[in-house]
This record gives sequence, structure tokens and C-alpha cells, in this order.
Amino acid sequence: MQLRWGIVGGGNISECFVRSLFNKPENHKVVAVGASSEQRAQQFIDKLNFPAGAPKAYGSYEDLVKDKDIDVVYIGLLNHLHKRNVLLAIAQKKHVLCEKPLGLNEAQVTEMTKAAKEAGVFLMEAFWTKFFPAWQVVKKGVYEKEFGGLKLFTARIGFSRHGANKMQLQYGGGDLMATGCYTVMAAMWIFGEKPSKIEVSGVSLADGVDERASVVLTFSGDRVANLMYTGECDLSCSAEVCCENGRYLIPEQLWAPSKLIKISWDAKVPRKEEVFPLPVEDHSAYKYPDASAMLWEAEHVHHCLQNNLTESPVISHKDMLELSQVLDEILRQSGVMYPDSIL
Amino acid sequence: MQLRWGIVGGGNISECFVRSLFNKPENHKVVAVGASSEQRAQQFIDKLNFPAGAPKAYGSYEDLVKDKDIDVVYIGLLNHLHKRNVLLAIAQKKHVLCEKPLGLNEAQVTEMTKAAKEAGVFLMEAFWTKFFPAWQVVKKGVYEKEFGGLKLFTARIGFSRHGANKMQLQYGGGDLMATGCYTVMAAMWIFGEKPSKIEVSGVSLADGVDERASVVLTFSGDRVANLMYTGECDLSCSAEVCCENGRYLIPEQLWAPSKLIKISWDAKVPRKEEVFPLPVEDHSAYKYPDASAMLWEAEHVHHCLQNNLTESPVISHKDMLELSQVLDEILRQSGVMYPDSIL
Repeated sequence: MQLRWGIVGGGNISECFVRSLFNKPENHKVVAVGASSEQRAQQFIDKLNFPAGAPKAYGSYEDLVKDKDIDVVYIGLLNHLHKRNVLLAIAQKKHVLCEKPLGLNEAQVTEMTKAAKEAGVFLMEAFWTKFFPAWQVVKKGVYEKEFGGLKLFTARIGFSRHGANKMQLQYGGGDLMATGCYTVMAAMWIFGEKPSKIEVSGVSLADGVDERASVVLTFSGDRVANLMYTGECDLSCSAEVCCENGRYLIPEQLWAPSKLIKISWDAKVPRKEEVFPLPVEDHSAYKYPDASAMLWEAEHVHHCLQNNLTESPVISHKDMLELSQVLDEILRQSGVMYPDSIL
Repeated sequence: MQLRWGIVGGGNISECFVRSLFNKPENHKVVAVGASSEQRAQQFIDKLNFPAGAPKAYGSYEDLVKDKDIDVVYIGLLNHLHKRNVLLAIAQKKHVLCEKPLGLNEAQVTEMTKAAKEAGVFLMEAFWTKFFPAWQVVKKGVYEKEFGGLKLFTARIGFSRHGANKMQLQYGGGDLMATGCYTVMAAMWIFGEKPSKIEVSGVSLADGVDERASVVLTFSGDRVANLMYTGECDLSCSAEVCCENGRYLIPEQLWAPSKLIKISWDAKVPRKEEVFPLPVEDHSAYKYPDASAMLWEAEHVHHCLQNNLTESPVISHKDMLELSQVLDEILRQSGVMYPDSIL
């Protein structure tokens, strides 16, 4: 089965996603692109060299989702536009892969998952991190207690993003939604549960959105995840998953890692560094690092739809809802208040 | 001038310190060792091959500090024994280098610095971290705004230390005092001021002492240090000092680093990795990693005393007092209450 994709939004993230699909043409075909104007959609199409011929250009998202040739819609818009367009696609019985964060709060996520369930369509938040082999090795190792019980998780992520247009309150911006959510998602995934306690400190607010915070999530057995994110400066973006007898270190780019280091407390066990190949070697055409790996989440969507799943077992509705609940509380403690007009 | 050292305490840390002195015999000579019994002191002496002949063995710290041949006392005891023995040494007009933390609270540090000032003797807390070239390069770079203004500091430190004897409340133990203090000290040093706000979260208390916490210190200009320390598991012990146009990364062993990486935001400026040689290459004889570098703090003491300083310009009384104030507040928020008997 070849999935026929409709692309909503012609920005960098959509471009990366589309390029990633080119690496598996037998499974994926882009049949239409929708942007805020037909001209913009056409510009996007002209820029990319579509291997199976140019897709149709739509000047409105509403028109795009009505296209009968589309099986599944990819949404790569600014955060505040996710809900409206996810619901538009679902109303047309289209399956949906939507960029993170799926919604701006729990209510939005609830509304979207409910609509998807009622329509019998697939809906998934595009947390591509979960499809990286490095993280899958960690998750499996923790589950199988390779190094004994899980004890602690720590992650930091930081990018200089001053003045970035999309970091505005009216667009549902902010560093939690942009990057911090990766660390929160990863922590909840690795612990396999919702935290019982959420502590936020060191918050910096700029123009109403958070540009930095430290978060401690407490899980069962008084175990914690210590997280920090910032839009003030670049950081190594490393994560450490610590167990009773050893730890997993993702030394950089925790949201999209190609490298994992395993370190046992047993000095006789050598430190093990593993590099995981990406779908392509040369990423010079991609706007974001390692972005060919977006193919992996597209492949997962392909797998789910081929098996008639309306929910991903890797990113379930429950996962999306629980994450939104935790993000809500972090935003509340951070003092971020999105305007009613976008909620 | 050759400094004549009296060593108080015959544990691992004293052994490391004494070994480090062997690398500069023209400046340092150990003339006496005091332990809880004469036999223990003698065992310590027999174990080490003193190049300038065996020092005297004392079965009490009080006897040792009275030794007329001693210029300066090194104190390598458990935390709760620092104050009493620092004061004993000062009463005998001996200069003192005392392991960190100098005191268990601000009152103890105040009492010791006051006594040192009145007696006209030198007193310094042995934060050897400040004497590592990697950190000095960072401090100088930040001061000279090599990468523009300082924005953020982050550090994590972790060791598996379950059941370690010295981590008990009655000994002034706990992870803040053992390792967390390195991150707090480094943050205050790099920012060059006291934090205006101290937030502690994710605390774990075991037998009354902290075994883990996350700390956010807020400095002027709403800049933060995000710190975490744990005794539950090993971590990479990395630190990042982030400025407007680049950052300094100490990838491991932040308390005693031999490596520094400089990363500019300007993609044209190559990442620069620098390795700083330690006083000796082979550390197999040392109980602690890179411990020959303790020589550097001893050399600093030598330099201060040769110049008749009673206060170190690198670790001043003010530095020691302000650090103790911040540690007090972190302990208070962590719920650590040392028994009156050791305060």
C-alpha cells in the first residue's frame, strides 16, 4: 500500500518531512500541498523535486483536506493552527499526523482525540524522537532491566532563538512547546507513567512566553526526571537515563540522536558507544539536523494504517493526553497564559 | 621557602593530598601526621614513601597542631570535625587548609574566619576545582567576555554512594556537602556574585541527609544556574557555561577537569577542544581521579604564605561565607537538619 499524503503548511518542517518521504517512494507519495495561498503552495512544490511528479497546490487548508486522493494529512503549521486544521482533516475522514505539540492544552487534545475516535480515523502527534533506534534501545534496555531498575532521568535542551517569529504568545509559542516538550515526553516515556509531582523553577518569560525553565518531575518510588530547556543559548542537548547498575547517555541532540553510549558501573564492562545510521547520510538538503529520520515516523504511520489501527501503540491517545496534562501544569507554573482567541 | 605541613586525618583524601605534595618537594614537606590513634598515624606514614624522610606520628589532632615544626595544617577529616580542628590549629597560630565544606553552616564558617583573622593566620577552604586550568580559562573567558555576556550555567554531578559511611547525618554528610557544593561553588564563582533566589526541588532524603536535589540559583539580570546532584547513580558530571555568542563545555569530572571544549555560535569558528596536563600522568597510586592536581591548591597556599597573605584572593573569606549562606538555604529547603551536637 502506498500512502497518499496531503501536506498542510509549506514551512521548513513540512519541507523536511516531504524530503524524508522521498527515501521510500514505494510507501509514500505526496499528492497535494496546501499553504496560505496557492502561490505559496506552488513555490513549495517548485522548490522540491518530487520523484513521482508534482503534487496539486491548494491555496487553503480546507480545500486540501477535501481532496479525494488524500489518505493522510501531515500538519506542519504553527502551534495555534494545529487544532483547527486537525479537526478540518478529521471532518473529511482523513488520517492525521500532526506536529508536536498536538494541542495547546489538554482540552484541545481531548477534543481532537475524541473527534478522531468518533470519525474512526488515525491521529498521532509527530514525536519523531520515539522512532530513533538509539531511544528504542534505551527504552527496551530499561524495560528489560539491562542495568537493573530505573532510578533517574536527566535531560537538557537549548537553542538560541531570540526574536524567532514563531515564539510568540499569539502563535502558541514558547520554549516548552518548542523544545522542552521533548524532554518531558522522553521522561514520561522512559518512566512509563505520569509524574505525581511537577516542580518548575528558574522560569524566564519574554513577551509572555517561557524562554527558559527547569522542571523536576517526580515518578513512583520517589524517582525523578530533572529537565531544563532554554531558548537563550545552545546547549549540548544531552540526556542520561540512570539505572541501578549503569546508565545510558545520549550525548547530544536528544530529540533526534544518532549516537548512544552505555556505561556500566561494573568497571570490567567496557563503555559501549553505538552509532545508528540514519535513512540517508547526506543531510545538506534538509533544513533541520538528521531530518531524514522523519521517514521513520511516516513509516510507523504507514504500518499503523496498513493494519487498520486508528491509534498508534507507540504514541497513543493516552500518551498524548497525559503529556498535555503535564505540559498544562508546567505552563501554569511558568505563568504562560495563551490568549483565549487561540484556545 | 619550604612549607612544613601537618596532616590532620589519615583517610583517602589526606593520602591523595600528601601524594600530590611529593611532586614539588622543594616547596612542600610533610613533617607530621595526626590520626585518631598513634598506630593509625603510623600506618598511614608506613604506607607512603615519604621522599624527605618519615614524618612524626601523632595520636591526637591536638598534639599535632602544637608541633613547633609545622607551618600549615591540612585538614582531611569528616565534615563534622572540621570546625573543632580548624579552631585547634588556629589557636596554635597555624595556617590552615581545610577540606570542603569548611563548616556545616554559616555560623561555623563565621566563627572560623573570625578566629583566623584575629590570630592573623591563613585559612582556606580546599576547593581545588578553582585551581584547574580548564576552569581558569573559563573564568577568564567569561570575565573578558570572550563570547559576550554570561547567560546561563548548568552542571550536574552524580556518584553511586549508597551506604557510604561518611554520608551520615551525625558526620555532617549528605550529597550537597559531598558533591553538590562543587556545582554551587562553581556557579557563584562564574557569576561572581551571590544568587538572589534559591529554588530547590526533587529532593530525596535518606536517613536524614539529602541524596539528591535539583537547584536553580537566580543571579542578576534574571540569569540562572541550573544544578543537580545525586548520590544515587553516576552521571557524566558535565558543566556548561553559556554566553551570548558561545559556550564552554566541561564534558566530565567538573570538579577536577582536564578537558575543556569551546563552542562558538559562529559556525565558521571551529569547535576547540583543549586538554590540560595534570602534575603527573600516572594516577594509579591516587585514590581519587586526577588527585595529583591537589598540588595546585597546595602551591597556591605556598604562594599566599610566601606573600604574607592571611586570605586567599581566589577563595576569600567572603567567598567561603557567601557559599555557606547559600548552602544553608539549600539544606533548609531540602529538609536536612544537622544535630545540635555537631553544630
